[in-house]
Amino acid sequence: MAARERRGPGRGSTQPESAVVDLNADLGESFGPYTLGNDADILRWITSANVACGFHGGDPRVMRKTVALCRERGVAVGAHPSYPDRVGFGRRVLWATPDEVETDVVYQVGALLAFCRAEGVPLHHVKPHGALYNVAARDEETAMAVARAVRSVDASLLLYAPPGSALARAAETVRLRVALEGFVDRRYQPDGTLLSRREPGAVIHAPEEAAAQAWAIAIDRAVRARSGEVVPLPARTLCVHGDNPAALAILETVRATLDQAGILVAAP
Amino acid sequence: MAARERRGPGRGSTQPESAVVDLNADLGESFGPYTLGNDADILRWITSANVACGFHGGDPRVMRKTVALCRERGVAVGAHPSYPDRVGFGRRVLWATPDEVETDVVYQVGALLAFCRAEGVPLHHVKPHGALYNVAARDEETAMAVARAVRSVDASLLLYAPPGSALARAAETVRLRVALEGFVDRRYQPDGTLLSRREPGAVIHAPEEAAAQAWAIAIDRAVRARSGEVVPLPARTLCVHGDNPAALAILETVRATLDQAGILVAAP
Amino acid sequence: MAARERRGPGRGSTQPESAVVDLNADLGESFGPYTLGNDADILRWITSANVACGFHGGDPRVMRKTVALCRERGVAVGAHPSYPDRVGFGRRVLWATPDEVETDVVYQVGALLAFCRAEGVPLHHVKPHGALYNVAARDEETAMAVARAVRSVDASLLLYAPPGSALARAAETVRLRVALEGFVDRRYQPDGTLLSRREPGAVIHAPEEAAAQAWAIAIDRAVRARSGEVVPLPARTLCVHGDNPAALAILETVRATLDQAGILVAAP
Amino acid sequence: MAARERRGPGRGSTQPESAVVDLNADLGESFGPYTLGNDADILRWITSANVACGFHGGDPRVMRKTVALCRERGVAVGAHPSYPDRVGFGRRVLWATPDEVETDVVYQVGALLAFCRAEGVPLHHVKPHGALYNVAARDEETAMAVARAVRSVDASLLLYAPPGSALARAAETVRLRVALEGFVDRRYQPDGTLLSRREPGAVIHAPEEAAAQAWAIAIDRAVRARSGEVVPLPARTLCVHGDNPAALAILETVRATLDQAGILVAAP
Repeated sequence: MAARERRGPGRGSTQPESAVVDLNADLGESFGPYTLGNDADILRWITSANVACGFHGGDPRVMRKTVALCRERGVAVGAHPSYPDRVGFGRRVLWATPDEVETDVVYQVGALLAFCRAEGVPLHHVKPHGALYNVAARDEETAMAVARAVRSVDASLLLYAPPGSALARAAETVRLRVALEGFVDRRYQPDGTLLSRREPGAVIHAPEEAAAQAWAIAIDRAVRARSGEVVPLPARTLCVHGDNPAALAILETVRATLDQAGILVAAP
Repeated sequence: MAARERRGPGRGSTQPESAVVDLNADLGESFGPYTLGNDADILRWITSANVACGFHGGDPRVMRKTVALCRERGVAVGAHPSYPDRVGFGRRVLWATPDEVETDVVYQVGALLAFCRAEGVPLHHVKPHGALYNVAARDEETAMAVARAVRSVDASLLLYAPPGSALARAAETVRLRVALEGFVDRRYQPDGTLLSRREPGAVIHAPEEAAAQAWAIAIDRAVRARSGEVVPLPARTLCVHGDNPAALAILETVRATLDQAGILVAAP
Repeated sequence: MAARERRGPGRGSTQPESAVVDLNADLGESFGPYTLGNDADILRWITSANVACGFHGGDPRVMRKTVALCRERGVAVGAHPSYPDRVGFGRRVLWATPDEVETDVVYQVGALLAFCRAEGVPLHHVKPHGALYNVAARDEETAMAVARAVRSVDASLLLYAPPGSALARAAETVRLRVALEGFVDRRYQPDGTLLSRREPGAVIHAPEEAAAQAWAIAIDRAVRARSGEVVPLPARTLCVHGDNPAALAILETVRATLDQAGILVAAP
Repeated sequence: MAARERRGPGRGSTQPESAVVDLNADLGESFGPYTLGNDADILRWITSANVACGFHGGDPRVMRKTVALCRERGVAVGAHPSYPDRVGFGRRVLWATPDEVETDVVYQVGALLAFCRAEGVPLHHVKPHGALYNVAARDEETAMAVARAVRSVDASLLLYAPPGSALARAAETVRLRVALEGFVDRRYQPDGTLLSRREPGAVIHAPEEAAAQAWAIAIDRAVRARSGEVVPLPARTLCVHGDNPAALAILETVRATLDQAGILVAAP
């Protein structure tokens, strides 16, 4: 990851040890004849990638190509497993049993692991996708199913999870390392959960605002809710949504802001 | 595999070193609400299993359960990748490109590998399923795609392939170990290929006939074609088709015959 | 349907006009290489069939064959649309939008309609499957989506729905005819909803009990809850679950009981 | 279709009766989160559309929306059934049996028919997609399977087929009306078949060339092969491939050329 660990010019010697963050994004979500997102460009700015595993997006060709691109760019590769729902892009909650979630995650992580082996890169982390991420954040049984699945494939994998979530707790329970995750392009509520996308202002489109939020998470370990309240957010990895039309502009500005503040940008 | 390496009472000291064969069968082909085959019973007689990976049969629950059953029985676990064709059960030729075949195989082998890790057993071999097996046996490009895929996931995996096939040659080309495979319940043609299922007598249903063919392959390394000709068949692993209604009776008789002849039955 | 309208020997002239019921069952749920249920036998006893449309079970070959069997037996053909969930057999709730439900139902009803045309039989009714049936029974938006879908394909179709359900109301709202449905092999709660399958005694396995419940619905338009309370159940069609292992025995006994009581068994 | 039947200013009284052609294109091939093609723009120039039915592209939402767009534009709606191969976009030959092809086509045509009913437009024609089109053009059994399928759903449907193809003959055999089809953006071989896409110059990108070919087909009922030979091409409908990057420019130029030549552009 050395190539990605640039420091900004303003980094002073008083910078605390902890001023290091990861920038992650969802990648490899194209499928068959369909292209989604702008992976090659997004890869210029991020330090870890969540690669779709074929259940909501991605297919074996896309997976191999995406892992190869990550290797070339020195970006850490993570698995991005989902409920099985290609037409709904994994954004719809499915009342799957814990056993179904666990085995679906094992399957998908294994499939991506094989492409990592084929390309000679380590599999670095797992981050559930879409509805599975949201359900695992609050439902203990689903969270435990995800955590058990990841651990059973490789106990050294990192799990990306929201601070204070059932998923973060589940990872601890099964002794899996966690990278707590914040979002630079989403507004938070005072209780630390994300404002629903249905609410006005839930998605941050202005690159400067996103960069300010990234800076606040990295330095202050907190964000400001719309109501003005300070919300603690001890995140080690920052997500930018690739489906945000401003994703590239946001990533560029966030990266520049972090670099200038002397914050190390590196995969956890 | 020690538990499976029974020797028959008649094993004499003059038995050649090579009188050891594997009995393999396709397993884990149930899907969702659907049950196919009689895996628990078949596992009593075989020494290696080809486990469906979700493209023609199997699903993540079935895969985990099948790998666990193999572990309990001491049966070696192999991946059984297919063209993506669940409704056609992988029996239909699909004009996939070598790149499509290669990445589809990597994906499926990885998925099964993850369940092997979760269950604490090694992944032992790969055997393509149905139409993919047949195409890879004669088409160099497809064969190379399969061989490259297997090797890129794990260079120590065995590839099951028909003697003299493009697949066996491809394995050699990429320096992958091969276990040559014969069929105990199918008739051969003088050229060493299988008589088409459409021909009368192509499938052997009588357990004694199948056992005789198994014995001939194990001891004489040859079978008799319908025309009476002796067809060399240097196979190290013998397949019994689980979809043969007589599969269990065949397996039991084959196993007893091999045991009595002092032929070691063990995974390669 | 004339062939199916047998009357029992005990039918007196005082029999009320309303003593006519339909017996329905889910059919055509096999898929590709997998066989599920015992369609040919079940068809001997029922008067209308809910035919899977490929989203939870069934495939185009199975659909054509099932419709042809219904034609031969004089059994009315209905569409049995589901959430798209083959591996979960449509039994898992999916948070689909009303638009997704509506268009998924249009698609499935159309597919079955085409097989009805090909076989020269009318499409008679629609009954949502599994989780979609349960959600449509209580959720107004889903219910309206289903009702609109059915009406938009053919305004003369019947919709099978539980008495008092959101689905029955939605059908009325869009001016679609409804056949209220009761279950002969499931226990009811005092509020008229089914006792959850997770509760002991939820499924009736004894053919005599099921027959008694069928008789009670047909004659008294009511059932007895486990607590002994009388639960009004004004159903015109009675469902027997094909996945009940006692399905055939139940159907035979129910049919005999209804015939003997002089209750006309005929599709609505 | 009246709105689409514009005549060019140059249409003289000596114009033969037959100078009328249809312009068709493949539409509705988006899927779930993925957008493909530029349907709204293409609809401005064509007079009939081949709408994907979910097996290679399209989903129920896309199908409804596409049929609605066709209705608004007065464009005739056709079904565009495919082999079941979403990841390969129906471009890969699958060795399906005639029974599999027939039932797959019935299923898909029915699904689209339902959306036509829901939107209040007639289903006008059927054109097989991709590999199925190519196989049905030369393989009698596949051609007959497609023709039987279409006829069994609605005997008044038109089948689009290449001149002299097995598909055109099959349509005649089952007494289905055919619209013979030519391609404006593909080169022909002297025998009347298309030059393979793998050959240089197989795809015509220059709008003027495509327009010249369209004109030649409409007026002369012939095209010029690369070798200069005149190839008879008695086509009533002209296809422009939407995946040709120049599709819109080609359509605009072709349409203008036909209009100016006084050739009526209308669905068959």
